[in-house]
Amino acid sequence: MTDTAVRPAASGDDDAATTPPPRSAEPVSATGAVSTAPPVLDTERLGRLLLGRWADIRLATRALVAKPEFQQIPGLGIEEHRARVLEQMHAMVREGAVARAFPQEYGGHDDHGGTLASFEEMFLADPSLQIKSGVQYGLFGSAIQHLGTKKHHDRWLADALTLKLPGVFAMTETGHGSDVASVGTTASYDPETETFVIDTPFRGAWKDYLGNAAKDGLAAVVFAQLITQGVNHGVHAFFVPIRDENGEFLPGVGGEDDGLKGGLVGVDNGRLHFSGVRIPRDNLLNRYGDVAPDGTYSSPIDSPGRRFFTMLGNLVQGRVSLNGAAAVAMKASLSVALIYGSQRRQFSDGGGEETVLLDYGRHQRRLIPLLAETLAVQLSHEQLLRMFDEVFSGANDTPQTREDLETYAAALKALSTWAAMRTLQETREACGGQGFLAENRITEWKRDFDVYVTFEGDNNVLLQLVGKRLLSDYAAQFKGADAARLARYAIGQVGDRIVSTAGLRKLAQNLVDLGSTARAVEHLREEEQRQLLTDRVQTMVAGIAARLNAARKEGAAAAAAAFNETQNELIEAARAHGELLQWEAFTNALAEVEDEGTRTVLTWFRDIFGLGLLEKHLAWYLVNGRLSAQRAEAATRYLDRLIARVRPYALAVVESFGYDPIAHLRAPIASGAEAERQDEARAYYAQLRASGRAPVDEKTLKKAARQR
Amino acid sequence: MTDTAVRPAASGDDDAATTPPPRSAEPVSATGAVSTAPPVLDTERLGRLLLGRWADIRLATRALVAKPEFQQIPGLGIEEHRARVLEQMHAMVREGAVARAFPQEYGGHDDHGGTLASFEEMFLADPSLQIKSGVQYGLFGSAIQHLGTKKHHDRWLADALTLKLPGVFAMTETGHGSDVASVGTTASYDPETETFVIDTPFRGAWKDYLGNAAKDGLAAVVFAQLITQGVNHGVHAFFVPIRDENGEFLPGVGGEDDGLKGGLVGVDNGRLHFSGVRIPRDNLLNRYGDVAPDGTYSSPIDSPGRRFFTMLGNLVQGRVSLNGAAAVAMKASLSVALIYGSQRRQFSDGGGEETVLLDYGRHQRRLIPLLAETLAVQLSHEQLLRMFDEVFSGANDTPQTREDLETYAAALKALSTWAAMRTLQETREACGGQGFLAENRITEWKRDFDVYVTFEGDNNVLLQLVGKRLLSDYAAQFKGADAARLARYAIGQVGDRIVSTAGLRKLAQNLVDLGSTARAVEHLREEEQRQLLTDRVQTMVAGIAARLNAARKEGAAAAAAAFNETQNELIEAARAHGELLQWEAFTNALAEVEDEGTRTVLTWFRDIFGLGLLEKHLAWYLVNGRLSAQRAEAATRYLDRLIARVRPYALAVVESFGYDPIAHLRAPIASGAEAERQDEARAYYAQLRASGRAPVDEKTLKKAARQR
Repeated sequence: MTDTAVRPAASGDDDAATTPPPRSAEPVSATGAVSTAPPVLDTERLGRLLLGRWADIRLATRALVAKPEFQQIPGLGIEEHRARVLEQMHAMVREGAVARAFPQEYGGHDDHGGTLASFEEMFLADPSLQIKSGVQYGLFGSAIQHLGTKKHHDRWLADALTLKLPGVFAMTETGHGSDVASVGTTASYDPETETFVIDTPFRGAWKDYLGNAAKDGLAAVVFAQLITQGVNHGVHAFFVPIRDENGEFLPGVGGEDDGLKGGLVGVDNGRLHFSGVRIPRDNLLNRYGDVAPDGTYSSPIDSPGRRFFTMLGNLVQGRVSLNGAAAVAMKASLSVALIYGSQRRQFSDGGGEETVLLDYGRHQRRLIPLLAETLAVQLSHEQLLRMFDEVFSGANDTPQTREDLETYAAALKALSTWAAMRTLQETREACGGQGFLAENRITEWKRDFDVYVTFEGDNNVLLQLVGKRLLSDYAAQFKGADAARLARYAIGQVGDRIVSTAGLRKLAQNLVDLGSTARAVEHLREEEQRQLLTDRVQTMVAGIAARLNAARKEGAAAAAAAFNETQNELIEAARAHGELLQWEAFTNALAEVEDEGTRTVLTWFRDIFGLGLLEKHLAWYLVNGRLSAQRAEAATRYLDRLIARVRPYALAVVESFGYDPIAHLRAPIASGAEAERQDEARAYYAQLRASGRAPVDEKTLKKAARQR
Repeated sequence: MTDTAVRPAASGDDDAATTPPPRSAEPVSATGAVSTAPPVLDTERLGRLLLGRWADIRLATRALVAKPEFQQIPGLGIEEHRARVLEQMHAMVREGAVARAFPQEYGGHDDHGGTLASFEEMFLADPSLQIKSGVQYGLFGSAIQHLGTKKHHDRWLADALTLKLPGVFAMTETGHGSDVASVGTTASYDPETETFVIDTPFRGAWKDYLGNAAKDGLAAVVFAQLITQGVNHGVHAFFVPIRDENGEFLPGVGGEDDGLKGGLVGVDNGRLHFSGVRIPRDNLLNRYGDVAPDGTYSSPIDSPGRRFFTMLGNLVQGRVSLNGAAAVAMKASLSVALIYGSQRRQFSDGGGEETVLLDYGRHQRRLIPLLAETLAVQLSHEQLLRMFDEVFSGANDTPQTREDLETYAAALKALSTWAAMRTLQETREACGGQGFLAENRITEWKRDFDVYVTFEGDNNVLLQLVGKRLLSDYAAQFKGADAARLARYAIGQVGDRIVSTAGLRKLAQNLVDLGSTARAVEHLREEEQRQLLTDRVQTMVAGIAARLNAARKEGAAAAAAAFNETQNELIEAARAHGELLQWEAFTNALAEVEDEGTRTVLTWFRDIFGLGLLEKHLAWYLVNGRLSAQRAEAATRYLDRLIARVRPYALAVVESFGYDPIAHLRAPIASGAEAERQDEARAYYAQLRASGRAPVDEKTLKKAARQR
């Protein structure tokens, strides 16, 4: 055992409840543990598991963002905040803390996973710094790297990395965000001058919400319809200088400041428009499509649709890294709320002592499932990040792994960013008035994080993409399937329908379970959870596919109507798929834990996550005959018991997150100040009682009088 | 028919989708309507229904808050924002727009309901102005009025109303918010000098989060433990001057600024502490408790507990008015999102046209149920406000009506403020990048509104209060009940248990419903909804009561443990009760609607609200055998159909809310600007096609080539 092992304090134990979270505790021998002693959670081991493969880089970035010069100052005005973030960007360059993803020859480290790991941790410095870095390196620089070719790398990458060339990623327009293929900006090739002419022909085609556009950007990667020889070859990326060295717009370029936003105030978002702006032919980022001097178009990818999605696929890292940022936001806000909830007392327990918030059943129900979900988000993110690194490093880069990566990233980013918003809201409320003070940071994180759910792909649109992938995978099963397979499938479906409709399966479960909650619970262990979660995805997808197929036979209009009618359900199916991915990653991670006590506690958290999903979708399982009423009730009761069981480990999990309350969380209510206030108040009352000068309560007098 | 009747535009109809919301439309004869024509919604009638009894006051306040000088300027620094709000407060006094609730002799109008109606509408000016007004009149002034007696009214009310005396409501402490009875501040009576000595003996006893405390307040109503002759008589309110005319703290008084908050930046919240501050005996607000010169305590209410709750009960108006503010926030944010969603287009419908967001199934599922919930919140608020007015005007002021009012207010405030936060978040996301721009206001409303869920009673604590009331009402049924009644009850319970456990009731439903969705739906009309919602509350409360009773027999410790174990469920039962109250109020309001078309459409919205509640709690209805799987599925499908059916009325409902897009909503995306952009883009493409110079798509060429 290491010296960081934490034995759970009994809930209600004074020391555990009022002192700051234990930094270390007496080691407890776990050898020959035949007793009923509670398992011991090794916070250091758990910490290492959560740090994952890029632990060193994460720790280095955490050390960096602990420095005051990188920290957000709440309430700065828009101009000061922007100036501060720009200076922080330069400081990051001086620290050598950026651009790990880029080739060594341009100042990078060829380290794809590490770059994102570092980016994710920057959330705790200032989300504005994180996002402005994301714009410069993850979008602008990355577009040059992945959509351009060597000549572009040679010309611009080094300067982009040192911030000599601050850049804009000009994809979204006021009129088109999610539907990038339909942007209105055009790049028309003129063979006479061998230039492209960039135009935003109407207001809706202005590029909008672009970081670095309002103030700092000198150039932009502009996404526009490439038109040559009378043909529109679809959206391509172009390098377009926009400002001169004095910061003035170049001829034909104009723009506007997006002004104040709901958060990320330190990022200078703005709009750009172009009127007949000419750029050299060479400024087309030509890895996936090129134009010869005479105007002839060529591309290594023949299909315009596949070409477009391949280009966009190179930008998946934005989604991957936001998934990791969501995990950071969840860990940080839960750290604050759980530390405060373990020290703050309110209402007497009847015995004269006030009760610690986290000992209330409701408080546990509010925060513990979010803690379990946070572990699921973090552990599934680690899996996603490894997958990303393998594809982008070239170690395992195939069309199949790319497609999987994109689907995985879309599903996880949508789920995790929503989960983070829920967590930020719940932790804000769980800290009451303190939670509303900017100094305790949750409100500020919440403001900044808000837009993560709609940028780099609106979550609903991302889940629809995942849903379409699920439908096409489903259809692929039947392509060229032989009669026997189809027959087996048909029998399975019919059998299933009979069982569900008649409630037979439920009745059978009732018979098995009757009178025995313990027996009902046994059926909800790992395999049962997996089966139920998997079954739900498959059944939902199959049901939607059946409805769409039936409609398709009635013509295009009926098919379109059916697609719209099932849109909500398809998105829910995609969400179910994402939940399954998170659950699988959590479960896989359990196998990596060698220490038994740690694994036991983590398994409880996994069960809280899994049973929480079953509880959330309980109606579906009941309606579809997958769970009996009895087993459904058992799941909820068991979940209640598990939540109470892990409550004593909550602070140990927070400790394993590894954020220093002072340097990283920087929330006074997580600093131990509340425990000091509680101690002072209790000492005051104890002294008063001891002095014999304490007033008698009128209530006590009245009671005594009644009894006389 | 009035000229404001709106016939629904067919969904997908160009005019309906791209023009601003209709301000009026062709009247449609509704006489002799035997056709299958869709019902006509009379927006003016609906508007009047929603304005309610205090329509004139609401309209007058709306006219006032439309003036630029009362409007929030997003992004103001903390000092400028506070100064602006203070100036707005004075301007409100000059407009005579405050203090309607107070007696005429002090400058008020004795109008309790009207005061709150006006207060609620102020949200659209600037929530900081609303809350600072609430502190001055609803808390500080109101405490003097309701907890003080004539001498206090004469001395301070007129000055409080004219803002000559800005005041602080010093109840909450850093260490005690929800548990007011346990505040640490003391007021010890000294008969020698006939003064009270006010002390905050430790840091946790400092008064905290107080509006007007950081800067403007000259006096405070301080809640402290009244100690005289060695007895603590519990919490009473004292008038304590805190600053001199130069704004300097008086001797013994100190304080701190709470600094930047997550929202309401224009309110100067702060902390106050007191060390041996002496105030005259007369400064005790003595309506419910007094101290004679010699130190003898007296009170018209003998029980200290009842006395405390009676005092606090006088402050119920805060909760009532926040419930109304929640309705305003919901109406405003949905107005913005639905107007934008009816103009904004994204993704092609396959026929070359892009689809309006609100025509997507998912977008409807996101926003329409919130619109139905908004109607429920508004209509139940009107009922609450009338109840409040009847109690506070004295028209119907009994212990029973007071208790009902307090329970009703606690339940509704908790549900509506959470609903508003959900609505603000969903509408923010539904507007994408535009939704994140401060100019479109939803992010700013969301920031400011955030704290409404935890102030004037943390929502979880409020629901627990409601839950306790439900339990005591339940227990009262059995007090002195005869054996026959108890026996009938016991049989009912047992019978119910048998039916639920064996799934017999469900099976019976399955048999009735089998093969007929229409028949299943018929059972989900008004009476069935009422029965299901009511049944759930009763069953949950009965179940909790049974568990608590069983535990009580095992002693105090077991009882306390059982209470904590059922806490989450009790709060859910209270939520169910609040939902039933909202549903009943919505249903009652339908009876007030004389116009048939309007009533029909409103009934659909009520059904969406009611079926939405059933869907949300479907697992409970299934597990407890109240709904068969078949009927449960029918409810969801019917809900889907209803949502699609009311979609064409969405903008008409927004119109009935009566907020002017320019003067009240002030969000550029709700101004018609998006429709203009869409028109411009479509005109551009139409012209391009007509010119013959439009480029051919590579996709089209490829397809043609393949077909050759």
